[in-house]
Amino acid sequence: MEAKVRVALDAMGGDYAPGATVQGAVEAAREYGIGVQLVGHEEQIRAELARYDTHGLDLAITPTDEVIAMDEHPATAVRRKKNASLVVALELARSGQVVGAVSAGNSGAMMAASLFVLKRIAGVDRPALGTVMPTRTGTTLVLDVGANTDCKPEYLQQFALMGAVYMERIFHINRPRVALLANGEEETKGNQQVQETHRLLKESAPRLGLNFIGNIEGRDIPAGAAEVVVCDGFVGNVVLKLSEGLAETLIAMLRSQMTSNPVNTLAAAVLKPSLKQLFKRLDYAEYGGVPLLGVNGVAVIAHGRSNAKAIKNALRVARETAEQGVVTAIAEGLARLGTSGEQRAEAGV
Amino acid sequence: MEAKVRVALDAMGGDYAPGATVQGAVEAAREYGIGVQLVGHEEQIRAELARYDTHGLDLAITPTDEVIAMDEHPATAVRRKKNASLVVALELARSGQVVGAVSAGNSGAMMAASLFVLKRIAGVDRPALGTVMPTRTGTTLVLDVGANTDCKPEYLQQFALMGAVYMERIFHINRPRVALLANGEEETKGNQQVQETHRLLKESAPRLGLNFIGNIEGRDIPAGAAEVVVCDGFVGNVVLKLSEGLAETLIAMLRSQMTSNPVNTLAAAVLKPSLKQLFKRLDYAEYGGVPLLGVNGVAVIAHGRSNAKAIKNALRVARETAEQGVVTAIAEGLARLGTSGEQRAEAGV
Repeated sequence: MEAKVRVALDAMGGDYAPGATVQGAVEAAREYGIGVQLVGHEEQIRAELARYDTHGLDLAITPTDEVIAMDEHPATAVRRKKNASLVVALELARSGQVVGAVSAGNSGAMMAASLFVLKRIAGVDRPALGTVMPTRTGTTLVLDVGANTDCKPEYLQQFALMGAVYMERIFHINRPRVALLANGEEETKGNQQVQETHRLLKESAPRLGLNFIGNIEGRDIPAGAAEVVVCDGFVGNVVLKLSEGLAETLIAMLRSQMTSNPVNTLAAAVLKPSLKQLFKRLDYAEYGGVPLLGVNGVAVIAHGRSNAKAIKNALRVARETAEQGVVTAIAEGLARLGTSGEQRAEAGV
Repeated sequence: MEAKVRVALDAMGGDYAPGATVQGAVEAAREYGIGVQLVGHEEQIRAELARYDTHGLDLAITPTDEVIAMDEHPATAVRRKKNASLVVALELARSGQVVGAVSAGNSGAMMAASLFVLKRIAGVDRPALGTVMPTRTGTTLVLDVGANTDCKPEYLQQFALMGAVYMERIFHINRPRVALLANGEEETKGNQQVQETHRLLKESAPRLGLNFIGNIEGRDIPAGAAEVVVCDGFVGNVVLKLSEGLAETLIAMLRSQMTSNPVNTLAAAVLKPSLKQLFKRLDYAEYGGVPLLGVNGVAVIAHGRSNAKAIKNALRVARETAEQGVVTAIAEGLARLGTSGEQRAEAGV
C-alpha cells in the first residue's frame, strides 16, 4: 500500500543537492508519511541518508549515475541522457511505479523531459508552469511563468482552465476567480494578444465553467484580486522574478535600517517573532513547487534554490496533485473545450 | 528673466487638484525658485493661492474653464476640448512662453495632446513614457511603461537611446548601463520581439554610444543591475504597477505585524525615524514624474495620485529637462541612428 503512494525525487537536482533533497525527502516521509523513491547516485544518497534516523520511513533508491547539469541545453540534454536522474524519475511516474516526480534541477530539462516522457493531455497545445504567490488575502497562481514565451490566445485560454482546476483541487477554492493580466482593467486594454484572449475567455467561460473576472493590473496581483492570473511565459517570468527580487530588496533594506544603531537593533529584536511570521508567508519554500500543468502525469518543478523545506513541500504538492485528480480534471475540462471547438469548426464559424 | 524659465502646470489635473497642484506650485516656487504658469479655473486657483503666502513668488494664471476628466477617452477628449487646461499648458510650451508643461491629469490625454501639440522629434517612431524606480544601489529608468503596448524592435531601440540620454542629463550618470528586460540573461532568451531587439541593440550600440549590457531578468531591476531598462509598454506597465502594489502590500503587512500588540507598537515607534527614511526612498512622490520622451518639447506626466510634493518635484523635473537640453540630445542621437538607417536602406541591406 505504502509503495503505491511513493513520489519519485530527482535526488541530484537543485543547487543544494543531494544534501537538501535527501533531507527534504526524510522530512516529507516523517512529517507527511510520504514514500519517496530517491533517484540518483546511490553512494551519495546513502551517505546523506546516514545522517538521519530513517527508521520506519518509506525511503527507497533507484540508482543512476547520469545527471543533467543546471546549465545544459534542456532539449539536447534530455535527448542524450536517457538515464539522467530527472528522466528516470519521470519514467517511474509514467510506468505507474510512483504517483509523480519532483525535480529542483534544470527546469528547462524537467519541462522538456516531462513532455517527452509523460506526453500532453489531449487538447493541450502547450503545458504551462505556474507559481503560487502570497497575496494580502491569500494565495494566487500565476501562469505561465516561463514554459512558453510566445503564446497564442488559445494557449492562454487553456492556461486559464488548467489554473482554475489546480486552485480548486489543491487550494480548495470554490470557483476561483480567473483574471487576465493587462495594463488596465477595461476590456479594450492590453496588447493584441491579450485583447484577443479576453474575447476568447469571455465567450467560452460559461461553457468551461470558468469564473472569469476580466483584466487585472500588476498591482492587483499582490492585492489578491484573483486566484488565477493568466499571462504568457515571458510576462509571467518577469512577474515572478521581479516579485522575488523586490521582496528580497525590501527585506534587505528593512534589515539594514533595523540594525543601523544599537537602539534599533534592540527594538528589532522585540519585533522578530512577528516579522518572522510575515517573512514566512513570503518564503517561496512554503509552497515547494508547482506541477507542470497539461502533461499526462504529475511532474513538479521546484525552485533551483530549493532548501530541504522546499523539497519537502514539493513532495507534498506532488502527492496532493495525484490524489486530487488534477490531471483527470484538466482532461475533462479540455474535452469540453475540444468538442465545442470541433462543433464550431463543423458549423463553419 | 524669471518669466523665461516658467513651467506651465495643469492646475486642474490629478486626483487631488486643484488643492495639491496649487500647493505644489507654491512649494516649487518657494523652494526651487521656479516660475509657475497655472492653467485652469481662475477662481478656483485664486481661492487655493489665497491659502498661502505667495509674496515674491513668480506665480501667474492662464485662465481656462475646460477640463479633461480622468475617465474621458484620451484622443477624443483632446480633439474636442481645444481649451482644456492640459492642452493649453502644452500650447504655452510649444509657443515658447514656458519651458515645459506638467500634468497629473488623464495621462492618456496628456500623451495624445503632447504628440498633437509638440509633435515628435525627427526620427522618433513612438514617444515613450518612463518611470524612475528606486533600487538597492540607486535609481533606474524603466521605459516604456504604458504609452505603447505593441512595439517593434526599432521602437525599443529608440527607447534605449532616449532613456540613456535622460539618465545622463537628469541623473548625471556617466554612460548609464542600458539593459533589455527578458526572461533570462542569455542572448537566446526572450520572446521573438526581445530577441530581435537584442540583435539590433548589440549591433547599433557602438554607433549610438550606448552602454548596452544585454538582457536582464525581473529580479535584476530592484537589485540595480542597470540604469535604463527597456521593454514594451505592456510589460513595463505590469512592472510599474506590480512594483507599486508589492511595495504597498509589503508595507501594509509590515505595519500590521508591527502594531499587532502593545509591545510591538512600542518597538515600532523606536524604529519609526529609520523606517521613514526607507519609505521615503520608496515614495513615488520623490521622483515627481517623467517627461514623455521623444516629443519635441518638455511634457512631464505626473502620477494621477500626485500630492503637493509630487507636483513640486514634477515641476523641478520639467525645468531640469529643459535646462539640460534633453530634447536636443535625443534629436542628435536619433540623427546618428537615422542617417545610418537611411544609408542601410540605400545600400539595400
